[in-house]
Amino acid sequence: MKLTILKNELNDAIQQVAKAASARPAIPILGGIKIDVTHQGVTLTASDTDISIQSFIPVEREDLVIATVDKPGSVVLPAKFFVEIVKKLPSDNIEIEVSQHYQTLLRSGSTDIQMVGLDPEEFPVLPSIEQSELLQMPGDLLKAMIRQTVLAASTSEQTPILTGVLWNLQEGQLKFVATDRHRLASRLAHVETAEDYRFNNVVIAAKTLVELSKLVPDQNGLVDIVVADNQVLFKIGNVLFYSRILDGTYPDTSKIIPQVYKTELVLDTKNLTDAIDRAYLMSREEKTNIVRLVTLDDGTIEISSSSTELGRVTEGLEAKQFTGDPLRIAFNSKYMLDVLKVIDSEQIMIGFTGAMSPIIIKPTDHAYSMYVILPYRTTG
Amino acid sequence: MKLTILKNELNDAIQQVAKAASARPAIPILGGIKIDVTHQGVTLTASDTDISIQSFIPVEREDLVIATVDKPGSVVLPAKFFVEIVKKLPSDNIEIEVSQHYQTLLRSGSTDIQMVGLDPEEFPVLPSIEQSELLQMPGDLLKAMIRQTVLAASTSEQTPILTGVLWNLQEGQLKFVATDRHRLASRLAHVETAEDYRFNNVVIAAKTLVELSKLVPDQNGLVDIVVADNQVLFKIGNVLFYSRILDGTYPDTSKIIPQVYKTELVLDTKNLTDAIDRAYLMSREEKTNIVRLVTLDDGTIEISSSSTELGRVTEGLEAKQFTGDPLRIAFNSKYMLDVLKVIDSEQIMIGFTGAMSPIIIKPTDHAYSMYVILPYRTTG
Repeated sequence: MKLTILKNELNDAIQQVAKAASARPAIPILGGIKIDVTHQGVTLTASDTDISIQSFIPVEREDLVIATVDKPGSVVLPAKFFVEIVKKLPSDNIEIEVSQHYQTLLRSGSTDIQMVGLDPEEFPVLPSIEQSELLQMPGDLLKAMIRQTVLAASTSEQTPILTGVLWNLQEGQLKFVATDRHRLASRLAHVETAEDYRFNNVVIAAKTLVELSKLVPDQNGLVDIVVADNQVLFKIGNVLFYSRILDGTYPDTSKIIPQVYKTELVLDTKNLTDAIDRAYLMSREEKTNIVRLVTLDDGTIEISSSSTELGRVTEGLEAKQFTGDPLRIAFNSKYMLDVLKVIDSEQIMIGFTGAMSPIIIKPTDHAYSMYVILPYRTTG
Repeated sequence: MKLTILKNELNDAIQQVAKAASARPAIPILGGIKIDVTHQGVTLTASDTDISIQSFIPVEREDLVIATVDKPGSVVLPAKFFVEIVKKLPSDNIEIEVSQHYQTLLRSGSTDIQMVGLDPEEFPVLPSIEQSELLQMPGDLLKAMIRQTVLAASTSEQTPILTGVLWNLQEGQLKFVATDRHRLASRLAHVETAEDYRFNNVVIAAKTLVELSKLVPDQNGLVDIVVADNQVLFKIGNVLFYSRILDGTYPDTSKIIPQVYKTELVLDTKNLTDAIDRAYLMSREEKTNIVRLVTLDDGTIEISSSSTELGRVTEGLEAKQFTGDPLRIAFNSKYMLDVLKVIDSEQIMIGFTGAMSPIIIKPTDHAYSMYVILPYRTTG
């Protein structure tokens, strides 16, 4: 294998795939990046047990010569050092040559780097996904759906299935649900796909979705999604992102969501966020994050928290609308803040069915997202 | 105590002093910020055992009313919560009122915060410093001197005196020296002071100087410095910064610095920095950070490092000047990088007196700074 390649192009592709290389690999090959060189271009691949990322660099793009291939071939190089050294090489061009026993020479300007390469035959084979049905959606919509649901996924490995986000598709409607049993986030969107295409119980780890998010450009390009038996493949331009589907059955969450409310409040999102944020600062001192919300007779609401050592925060807030019964309720202010920070609506509706029943939070601008927080049982 | 004060002015002063409040106070009062209110203005003070910072907010500045004082008085408030809550208060104005038992009420917009205040009489008294002799220097010069020496101070508490930077003054020349026994940094500057004013063995903790640096604005204002028996006072605008002088005698470092060199190299600072940085990435894998520098017969130099697992980096570098004997030497690449990152000269001179003798690094633009790195003993 021998080629010359533009440093910036190689560096961009390395940065894209490097996230999938194991930081603490069980065997050295899993901490590597595989380089496959053909006369068409250079393919970089990294893979741990959960995700695999592949990026393709063509030899030419719009009359720009990116790579000159002298001899096709493959090698695996240790990711950590490779990632750091390439961006620091002195010239705009890098020559890469693999000799016997995968000894690899990188040459750039007056810098020579000999690297101990590994046998590409030992590198994990990417899942083969037969592309039958396809889902297509704008990258920024995918990013929004991820951002608006991962907050409610569990971070505890005790119930692995809850560390994921549930995907359902039916009648062209894609729905994400995440819950850690204390709170729930749900987000719906129309997507481009065959009308009769449907799936259920596709669960993808929240932390994998966060990594995927970072690879999706902010411009409004389309992402192709292929769901297979135990893998999901995302195509983002020249990048392929493979994620494992989590094992197990996601619990049915539909029953915990009340459909009618005894009390409904409409509040300004920013004012509520700021008030909860101040109450959170005090509640955090007690580790419980307990904040109380009380409706007053004059139609305003009061939010408060207290700490025996520090004191007490009391916030007065105007409700844009207030219908139903008076209310006293306590909840985790951090959970509420997490929701308020990702909700994309100037006003929100909060629905209550009593001090011990789930609290529902919805944007007033649209019906695509919905959040549930379980209240705290408190005395007094 | 009762007053109304502009939020931003209070917040700025809190941010300035908060660094001196203990993060893990032995008694609660040391984790507090003291507020003293008079008809002239508001003084904030925080203090741990090493540093104390005081900031004064006048009631008026250039026709802007900053504070309206209804009743003078004092209180101590817990720093951590106070620092965070003030900047998040909803209105531009904050009303502060202290009632019985130092119960303190902050009121801003529709937010009420009750805080458990502490007795200001229990707060540590600031060192009283008699202002006899004064040292005056531009803030940016002080910041440069700190940045260019703290890198060589020890981070080990085994020899506390070496965690400091030594200050000497004689004949209007202020000199900073820091060393951890493996490397040394020295920086000299002319300062404004009485000609016969001199001191020696004033040692200030490097981490204190780094905190001081952050308080000095980037604009070229003057900093007043008063050195007392066991304290140094810095006056930066409305802020007073007190630092303890470290106990003990700083070792004499003058003898380890060679005055004549067997080999002298002049190199481009940026090219050398980049080459050492790449060699460092490889050397770091072996934990030793060993990099070798060899002069070649054609007048160029070669920098290299290797790792049994990863491979080898070899860098060729042109010397701007090369006089004296050929050389093979090994040193800690991290120590060299630390020096190269703070040296303010396009070219540097490196002086060697043999493979086992200290390496001297100096800027070629001026004679104010000097660095020493001890080489490694290596085989081959």
